[in-house]
Amino acid sequence: MDLTSHIRTIPHFPKRGIAFRDITPLLMDPAASDHCLQMLLERAADLKIDKVVAIESRGFFFGSMMANKLNAGFVPIRKPGKLPYAIEKEFYELEYGADSVEIHKDGINKGERILLHDDVLATGGTAKAACNLIQRLGGEIVQCNFIMELVELNGREKLNGFPVESLLSYP
Amino acid sequence: MDLTSHIRTIPHFPKRGIAFRDITPLLMDPAASDHCLQMLLERAADLKIDKVVAIESRGFFFGSMMANKLNAGFVPIRKPGKLPYAIEKEFYELEYGADSVEIHKDGINKGERILLHDDVLATGGTAKAACNLIQRLGGEIVQCNFIMELVELNGREKLNGFPVESLLSYP
Repeated sequence: MDLTSHIRTIPHFPKRGIAFRDITPLLMDPAASDHCLQMLLERAADLKIDKVVAIESRGFFFGSMMANKLNAGFVPIRKPGKLPYAIEKEFYELEYGADSVEIHKDGINKGERILLHDDVLATGGTAKAACNLIQRLGGEIVQCNFIMELVELNGREKLNGFPVESLLSYP
Repeated sequence: MDLTSHIRTIPHFPKRGIAFRDITPLLMDPAASDHCLQMLLERAADLKIDKVVAIESRGFFFGSMMANKLNAGFVPIRKPGKLPYAIEKEFYELEYGADSVEIHKDGINKGERILLHDDVLATGGTAKAACNLIQRLGGEIVQCNFIMELVELNGREKLNGFPVESLLSYP
């Protein structure tokens, strides 16, 4: 099955010059979606994952399904102000300005084996901030796992030192 | 298994006077999380669901897992400006002012059997807006499905006419 036929490219979203890769057609099709899930799980086989950590919001779809199939806990990383309990916070740079992500302090126990998931690896800014949060809580990042990678943006370089897996490459 | 022991109450979040019911401890525990999923699926058994529609963001966790287990498509309802393709939009009233939710126009085909999922049924404002979107696209709402229901807020009344299922009741 060709997953790319279930990913829609939207020109100029969210802003001019960006080609957005939309996974909603994939989610809408149960056979394609399950195929994608199985491919993601293959990449994570035998890694003895304790927790799947996923990034708001599009990472939540396959992140929660993966956690269930791997019999692992699920921990969301969210945008500021969304998590209600004690948090760790990490800032990261944007083209103009800065943004931040948060995780619950009790989300990860020291030494736990973590799979980080998001739908797309772009510049790697958010993923790197997520890795920093996981490490600050003592988690061991066993894999950074994505459906797609936008290779020209060199996100892999920012995640240097962590194993990165992605199913599809886009320019 | 008592699911309530995995739901954390946070006083005064997101604002003074609100007792927030936090499902992150449930998500973090794979056995409890799978038990919750199985209970949600029991409520949806034999309904021949075509699509699970879930509300951003906390509805995405169990919504996507349910869709996978039910061999149904998954369709997100999101806050304004997040969905990249052609959308339907529905406004709903808040205590002060109004908010809106959006769905992709191609997310539902006429006559499809829809299960709507969110983590919490509170006043029912968002859930009702979601139901309106589903109906506008020709979907048949077979069940409105929640982990929890805050009974004093009478959300069920707003969803009058649709079958409502929730696993847990809170005041």
